[in-house]
Amino acid sequence: MRTAAALIIGNELLSGKIADENLVVLAGTLRSLGVKLVRAVMVLDELGVIAAEVKALAAAHDYVFTSGGVGPTHDDLTIEGVARAFGVPVVRAPNMERMLREYYGDRLTEGHLLMARVPEGARLVAGESAAWPAVVMRNVWMLPGVPQIFRAKQSLIQAELSGGTPFVSLAVFTTLDEGQLKPMLDRVVAAHRDVDIGSYPRWSGADYRTKLTFDGLVEAKVRAARDAFAESLPPDAIVRVE
Amino acid sequence: MRTAAALIIGNELLSGKIADENLVVLAGTLRSLGVKLVRAVMVLDELGVIAAEVKALAAAHDYVFTSGGVGPTHDDLTIEGVARAFGVPVVRAPNMERMLREYYGDRLTEGHLLMARVPEGARLVAGESAAWPAVVMRNVWMLPGVPQIFRAKQSLIQAELSGGTPFVSLAVFTTLDEGQLKPMLDRVVAAHRDVDIGSYPRWSGADYRTKLTFDGLVEAKVRAARDAFAESLPPDAIVRVE
Repeated sequence: MRTAAALIIGNELLSGKIADENLVVLAGTLRSLGVKLVRAVMVLDELGVIAAEVKALAAAHDYVFTSGGVGPTHDDLTIEGVARAFGVPVVRAPNMERMLREYYGDRLTEGHLLMARVPEGARLVAGESAAWPAVVMRNVWMLPGVPQIFRAKQSLIQAELSGGTPFVSLAVFTTLDEGQLKPMLDRVVAAHRDVDIGSYPRWSGADYRTKLTFDGLVEAKVRAARDAFAESLPPDAIVRVE
Repeated sequence: MRTAAALIIGNELLSGKIADENLVVLAGTLRSLGVKLVRAVMVLDELGVIAAEVKALAAAHDYVFTSGGVGPTHDDLTIEGVARAFGVPVVRAPNMERMLREYYGDRLTEGHLLMARVPEGARLVAGESAAWPAVVMRNVWMLPGVPQIFRAKQSLIQAELSGGTPFVSLAVFTTLDEGQLKPMLDRVVAAHRDVDIGSYPRWSGADYRTKLTFDGLVEAKVRAARDAFAESLPPDAIVRVE
């Protein structure tokens, strides 16, 4: 199974000024592609930290996706961090420079041209839905942090990483609490090792007490685990099955 | 300055089923206490991963806060992970066992009693606003993942970690884009090294193009940096100053 990690970059997130909106979007994209997101790390705008994290994550996962730090100001350190992680210099991408010159025309500044910086050897991934390309260095995708733009890049990821088997997700909602259902749950977990089973106490306002989730790549196995669990409950304890 | 890290635990977050709501809450709490949150890591429900992460984070930061994985089911591995990180066994806390017996009465199951598990040597932090105590092992706070309960525990953190100098945050909102304002910004960044300066292109719907933030522990220094930047802009490029 293909694996991925996310690196979310930005002082504004760790200081509580704004909440990250991008991780759940990326997670949904990867899930639909059958790529398992196994780790996400959030760090400050510090070059050495970003470089070390990219190096470690890129070595341990099939794909890495970064969010944030790709603008032209002093706190935008992702391009340089990725370059340092791979031991290459930062260069200007001619295609991106041309796009910037066309877009800004007479208003163009040296600051604007900094947005054409890429790690040497990076490739540009473009598509119909996103005018500005995504920059990809080996297995590391550098995505912008602004949520609207981050979302617009998802179609590029979907196009490039397509072809996998998507995950199957089923669920049982029950009125039992986790302490009550644990013996039944443990038996099903032990008998269905290929299925990832999760247990979540209800969020407020729900009509159930616990949601049990059943996830995997083979639908028949996921279905068997879900059904075995549902059949082990008293019928009146089941709110619904999905 | 005191530092902290967060460890957010749960398959449901990395699979995109739900978005984490807790990190931004914790970040706000720590900021109000003058504690710098420098790193957050999100991992799956895997015992070895949790234990290794807790060990590394606890060694490198003054405080670690975990979110999630504290219930009684097979996918609740935080207590065991923290115990393994510190090389101690998991034991049952008599106080918590008593509270569980009182709460559940005749309905009590062995499953319910699993919620009294703590790493040996952990202390319980209780307060008026949260009936159920928080479990703290050395510098590691184990908080529940359910957002309402996570939020309810923040007052315990505030009471225990109070006494620091809170951060001061100021801002300038401008109609200039990052490429245009970069030369002025770079001068202010170079001259005000004690102040953390951030630059954020606008989110949609705003009346400005870029927000500049100025953060630090000494108000006079933060104010000086903010004013120096504002004075370097053409007056009609400033939307407002905070």
